[in-house]
Amino acid sequence: MKNIHVRSTIQSYDIVIGNHIRHHIKDQLDKNYSSILIITDSNVGKLYAQDIHDGLNQKNIFIEIVDAGEQSKNIETFYNLHTKAIEYGLDRQSLIIALGGGVIGDLAGFVAATYMRGIDFIQVPTTLLAHDSSVGGKVAINHDKGKNLIGSFYPPVLVLYDTDTLQTLPPKEIRSGYAELIKEAMLSDSGLWNKLLSQHLDRITPADLEQFLEMGIKIKAEIVQQDERESGVRKFLNLGHTLGHAIEADLGYGVLTHGEAVAIGLLFAFYVSEQELQAVLPIQELRDWLKRNEYPFLVNTDRIDELIDLMKRDKKTEHNQIQMVLLNKIGDPVTHIVEENKLKNYLTSFVEREIING
Amino acid sequence: MKNIHVRSTIQSYDIVIGNHIRHHIKDQLDKNYSSILIITDSNVGKLYAQDIHDGLNQKNIFIEIVDAGEQSKNIETFYNLHTKAIEYGLDRQSLIIALGGGVIGDLAGFVAATYMRGIDFIQVPTTLLAHDSSVGGKVAINHDKGKNLIGSFYPPVLVLYDTDTLQTLPPKEIRSGYAELIKEAMLSDSGLWNKLLSQHLDRITPADLEQFLEMGIKIKAEIVQQDERESGVRKFLNLGHTLGHAIEADLGYGVLTHGEAVAIGLLFAFYVSEQELQAVLPIQELRDWLKRNEYPFLVNTDRIDELIDLMKRDKKTEHNQIQMVLLNKIGDPVTHIVEENKLKNYLTSFVEREIING
Ligand SMILES: NC(=O)c1ccc[n+]([C@@H]2O[C@H](COP(=O)([O-])OP(=O)(O)OC[C@H]3O[C@@H](n4cnc5c(N)ncnc54)[C@H](O)[C@@H]3O)[C@@H](O)[C@H]2O)c1
Ligand SMILES: NC(=O)c1ccc[n+]([C@@H]2O[C@H](COP(=O)([O-])OP(=O)(O)OC[C@H]3O[C@@H](n4cnc5c(N)ncnc54)[C@H](O)[C@@H]3O)[C@@H](O)[C@H]2O)c1
Ligand SMILES: [Zn+2]
Ligand SMILES: [Zn+2]
Repeated sequence: MKNIHVRSTIQSYDIVIGNHIRHHIKDQLDKNYSSILIITDSNVGKLYAQDIHDGLNQKNIFIEIVDAGEQSKNIETFYNLHTKAIEYGLDRQSLIIALGGGVIGDLAGFVAATYMRGIDFIQVPTTLLAHDSSVGGKVAINHDKGKNLIGSFYPPVLVLYDTDTLQTLPPKEIRSGYAELIKEAMLSDSGLWNKLLSQHLDRITPADLEQFLEMGIKIKAEIVQQDERESGVRKFLNLGHTLGHAIEADLGYGVLTHGEAVAIGLLFAFYVSEQELQAVLPIQELRDWLKRNEYPFLVNTDRIDELIDLMKRDKKTEHNQIQMVLLNKIGDPVTHIVEENKLKNYLTSFVEREIING
Repeated sequence: MKNIHVRSTIQSYDIVIGNHIRHHIKDQLDKNYSSILIITDSNVGKLYAQDIHDGLNQKNIFIEIVDAGEQSKNIETFYNLHTKAIEYGLDRQSLIIALGGGVIGDLAGFVAATYMRGIDFIQVPTTLLAHDSSVGGKVAINHDKGKNLIGSFYPPVLVLYDTDTLQTLPPKEIRSGYAELIKEAMLSDSGLWNKLLSQHLDRITPADLEQFLEMGIKIKAEIVQQDERESGVRKFLNLGHTLGHAIEADLGYGVLTHGEAVAIGLLFAFYVSEQELQAVLPIQELRDWLKRNEYPFLVNTDRIDELIDLMKRDKKTEHNQIQMVLLNKIGDPVTHIVEENKLKNYLTSFVEREIING
């Protein structure tokens, strides 16, 4: 069992990582809660909700199951969860447990952040990607006009990561979370990059995965502690996301996983860094690794205009300029404003080249 | 012009009080905002939105007007305001101005709290009651099942109180805000109680009103600074509100103003304090003053059960007990748990007595 402490001006918290710890959640609570609402999705609920319920060993536990998938991060589901919380009689001494991937973490976290102006919540991440989403206190739902546009900064009181739950995760979801690990590796000089790219996803061991997870969490925690509200270095975590988010939105959510889209964005960030900063980067190594591990490259030249429009509308955009995170080298990120026309040219030649090479 | 500083762990801010200061809002800003969205209601908008707009003297100012009244504090209006903010291109460097009473402050404040996880907002209160709602950082919308159930703690960057705007306020709304002043007077030994009850609302001067406003704000600010997240003394601000909220909900919002309902609750708090704590309180003085100033007493004995049920469901309820704020004497509040059956008896005899006396 590992314990990583995350400092936060709002509320500091521990991330506990271990095998099978979902059964012992009670040991980690240092408060009595008048009632507990477990929010989970239709896939995760049937696998793990009962374990959490039993591990809590108290009265007044309720379980709410929402449809699996990004589309549950919407305003109606948000409101319905509030309705349920009221009907179950949750008060200010109650707890919400987010059991699932990033979708559940973001959704249930935002419900907790706004229920009676905020009650305690615990993240129990069950995807590899959620190593990212469960750290840093960002919670949100989507607006019809863009992802994560309605939300808060609201840290959990605890993150309880049972690595055993990753065993049931489909390969596509492993790919997704692994791409975020690669992103973190690109932001740090911890040696994680070499470790990650020397693996093949089909043959990775649980022990290795746990090690990477821990390293990824530490890199992310380090950054968010320096800059909780994303006015400075936290922006670096957006590496690969300007294009990644645009691809997700343009294809319609669910066609690619978040991480699969981000993987394309990471490759593009390498490419633009080479052009704009004359950086020398292992772009070929990443390209080969992504291909070997079956990351889809779903971008087409006839969508360039739409993608640029979406990139302009990105939440991280300020004063209507397109800001990207680029790299001087692995472990040395910078934010950089790329002029719209230039970006369009880069994207066009990048996509053409990848399609020819692919 | 007066300046009251409010410390907050989230963000400290100033409350500036003065006559006609709405025209000079630009002088009070210490940042450049990429765009500004003024959110106001259908009554206030036509009176003051243009003044604020002109006083800002910059590009990219947008005005959104919602229907006047409590029913605008709902999830659809909240979502629509997000839509507008996105369409107008507000980014993280943008500002929201809440121009209006407590409804607009709560609604626009909650939009600001959740737009892209929080952007700056300024309160420009235009009701007497908003001296209360604009201080302390509580923002919220209503759920169908209860008031203010969805919200956050999210302080403004500035409160700009132009007392000149109170001139256009209807008498009913003066009564409403004045009741909250009386509440604050009951919680403090500042001498405000005697000042307030020696006045008649029809003949009050703007200078007196400004003085009371400032005293009320200071009392409230003092309390919220001690206890930002309402785990202790802040609960005292709930004096009169357990019954007040129940009456509002039972009659349907808008029949009584918030303060008119709270006034009945204050009288009841005196009554229960006499019974439970053997306190000696100026209940007759308050009763006479309320009658002279035309506060309606809209409670009927056949609604006792509904009122008790509503009081049990109050957000401030913990572990399902009914907690009330009572007074040992003026300036000496305590929280007190009143057993349900006892409370029912108190409420019945209180209502019967008031109806006979009324
Ligand atoms: N808050 C943040 O800082 C942050 C950071 C990154 C991503 N996110 C958000 O995270 C979301 C993506 O998260 P995600 O990739 O975990 O998606 P997800 O929560 O939708 O999970 C992916 C799929 O895996 C299933 N699943 C989850 N755990 C499982 C398990 N143990 N066994 C079998 N199936 C399982 C889910 O039911 C779902 O179908 C996005 O909405 C994104 O915006 C948030
Ligand atoms: N956040 C808090 O701490 C807090 C505290 C107390 C109350 N509240 C909330 O405040 C709300 C009540 O606030 P309110 O009483 O100010 O109600 P309000 O905002 O609805 O205003 C009352 C009426 O007066 C009109 N009006 C406002 N200013 C005017 C002016 N200058 N001239 C003419 N007409 C004007 C409005 O259009 C409205 O019709 C409730 O929703 C309550 O929950 C919040
Ligand atoms: Zn991501
Ligand atoms: Zn009130």
